[in-house]
Amino acid sequence: MGKSAVVGVGLSKFGKREDASLRELAAEAVYESFQDARDIEPGDVEAVIVASSQPERLVVQSHVAPLICEYLGVKPSKGAFRVESACSSGGVALRMADIMIRSGEASKVLVVGVEKMTEAPRSEVMTTLSIVGDKDWESIHGITAPAGFALAAQRHMLEYGTKEEHLGLVAVKNHANAELNPKAMFRRRITLNEYKDSPPIAKPLKLLDCSPICDGASCVILTDAEDARKYNDTPVVVKSITQTTIGNSSTTVDDLTTWKPLVEAASRAYSLAGISPKQVDVAEVHDCFTIAEIIEYEDLGFCGKGYGGRFVEEGQSAIGGEVAVNTSGGLKAKGHPIGATGIAQVVEITLQLRGEAGKRQVSGADIGLTHNLGGFAVNHVVGIYGRMT
Amino acid sequence: MGKSAVVGVGLSKFGKREDASLRELAAEAVYESFQDARDIEPGDVEAVIVASSQPERLVVQSHVAPLICEYLGVKPSKGAFRVESACSSGGVALRMADIMIRSGEASKVLVVGVEKMTEAPRSEVMTTLSIVGDKDWESIHGITAPAGFALAAQRHMLEYGTKEEHLGLVAVKNHANAELNPKAMFRRRITLNEYKDSPPIAKPLKLLDCSPICDGASCVILTDAEDARKYNDTPVVVKSITQTTIGNSSTTVDDLTTWKPLVEAASRAYSLAGISPKQVDVAEVHDCFTIAEIIEYEDLGFCGKGYGGRFVEEGQSAIGGEVAVNTSGGLKAKGHPIGATGIAQVVEITLQLRGEAGKRQVSGADIGLTHNLGGFAVNHVVGIYGRMT
Repeated sequence: MGKSAVVGVGLSKFGKREDASLRELAAEAVYESFQDARDIEPGDVEAVIVASSQPERLVVQSHVAPLICEYLGVKPSKGAFRVESACSSGGVALRMADIMIRSGEASKVLVVGVEKMTEAPRSEVMTTLSIVGDKDWESIHGITAPAGFALAAQRHMLEYGTKEEHLGLVAVKNHANAELNPKAMFRRRITLNEYKDSPPIAKPLKLLDCSPICDGASCVILTDAEDARKYNDTPVVVKSITQTTIGNSSTTVDDLTTWKPLVEAASRAYSLAGISPKQVDVAEVHDCFTIAEIIEYEDLGFCGKGYGGRFVEEGQSAIGGEVAVNTSGGLKAKGHPIGATGIAQVVEITLQLRGEAGKRQVSGADIGLTHNLGGFAVNHVVGIYGRMT
Repeated sequence: MGKSAVVGVGLSKFGKREDASLRELAAEAVYESFQDARDIEPGDVEAVIVASSQPERLVVQSHVAPLICEYLGVKPSKGAFRVESACSSGGVALRMADIMIRSGEASKVLVVGVEKMTEAPRSEVMTTLSIVGDKDWESIHGITAPAGFALAAQRHMLEYGTKEEHLGLVAVKNHANAELNPKAMFRRRITLNEYKDSPPIAKPLKLLDCSPICDGASCVILTDAEDARKYNDTPVVVKSITQTTIGNSSTTVDDLTTWKPLVEAASRAYSLAGISPKQVDVAEVHDCFTIAEIIEYEDLGFCGKGYGGRFVEEGQSAIGGEVAVNTSGGLKAKGHPIGATGIAQVVEITLQLRGEAGKRQVSGADIGLTHNLGGFAVNHVVGIYGRMT
């Protein structure tokens, strides 16, 4: 069976986008991807997969995949649909597009991620975030996302001696990267002191540990790898995309500091791609909260278990380090428009592997990894990408 | 590339289910499918695809695929996610499961459809239905589903002489079939006079032209066709599933009485399955409104364009006719819990092809067809199923 390849990428500006509706945000990303790919027009698109987590509540609109198609003038003969997997919706959409291409079902698939989170009243946004968890049995008792990840942080501190400063250094690094990314929401550096002085959210997490509520859209055009050079001089090959799910509530995670479904998804992704973690040059990982990035260094095999804090402290995850992590600014500083996130990660990896990441370029990047998480560390998607040789 | 096959099916009782939550409805259908398949346990399931249209608004819960997995004790190593395609969500979920199996991505996939529509206040249910259409440009002006399909009915009457009685006969037939289906919401016959006396909704559509708001769940277990006999003595093969989408609003349908994306999806489904429309013995089609079933007879090739009214009048779509349509009672009388519908159609076709449909059995049924529609006739999924020889 063949492979798929990325031949076009696009990203809207992330942030509070009062100037653009959901469909306009999507179009901003899609048009950029059509500019990026050569000789692909809206009429050539065979299938469209849209990742969006809660447009029904956030912008009071359902059936958004056909809605976006109509706005773009795309009439996909092999269909359009939406996938929802909370914060990992984008990763799942890419995975299904890759499977559609490898199965021969379609040869040109548009994958669009979009979320408009700042239009609804704040109370409605809080509802959408809290009902990702089990409303009847968990979030109603207060285990919302910040609380759940705070528990993981407390346990990681207890077991491995991870410190407040380690969490802060993740935020400092990702803000520094975002300063170099024109599409990022927060294009400004922060200091460790600013981090320490930021207001508490759920102990030990502070405001600057948390990714923001944000509007944005992302787009990737996938084709058969065999045909990819027709559409782009520097296509990026999808080496593997895997997903593992264990449940929804935090009680299904039997270890707060080692996320077994992530270890499993990563292990299979490395095996299918035929690489080891040490070969990854650049990675976009799911830093919804800073502690998540630290645990992900470990569970993705970038460092040993418990060494995540030291990994960031030593600069190993900075541009120029062992593996450059979240060069885009990550969810923390680029922004986290939920459905757009997993696809935006692939946009960044594609730019890095092509050598087109500007001031944040990782020199000689050959292999890139993405990690997209849904719910409380229960649902993980891992992708591995490489330059076409 | 191989084929997939249905080795287990399950359906909850459809109706106003005050006794069951969303996850309990899903479990009712899933447990029945595990009973139906031999030697498949929750631990054997590799991937789970959930079809649900608006759980965020209807039961105030998101991330329902992992939620349902957790309730079932399923931890899918190849992931769980939800698809949304409005009323065609179930058809899309089955299609993606078929593609996952054919691509070698997974060999045992659980496909679950569920919607709980009667728990939310009526005003909220009306919102969920109206935002399937384009809220900003169409439904706000009154083109909701009943209004849109009423326009199609008026035009079909004008162009082809279709009569009120023809619409009524679809409802009469589907209620008669539902009387024979223990899982149906409305297990009672109606007369043509009752139909004519039912309250107007959107001229010419009356209450008894419309499918009901309903709770329910459905489940299909798909495996590699090669292995199917391990799990079921009478597996049903997926011959083809196709989808075509043209947009979202009614203005994208350039002919109200011939649904081109349906004609295209059906043509490709027949071609991939290597059959002609005349070979279909039993079909479950998307009768969200009675006029839809009449247009679908035509666009699926069961009769010529414009002859849909006469087709039902002559009894050609009744059990014992040319092609038995909606033996389950259809959306009209079995019920239409949105996410569950497309998968429930395959449950019925499977029972028919196995000869297990009880009093509504179509004798000698070899080939079955399903048609699932999303939005205003803009998004169509067609599936063709056969007995394993």
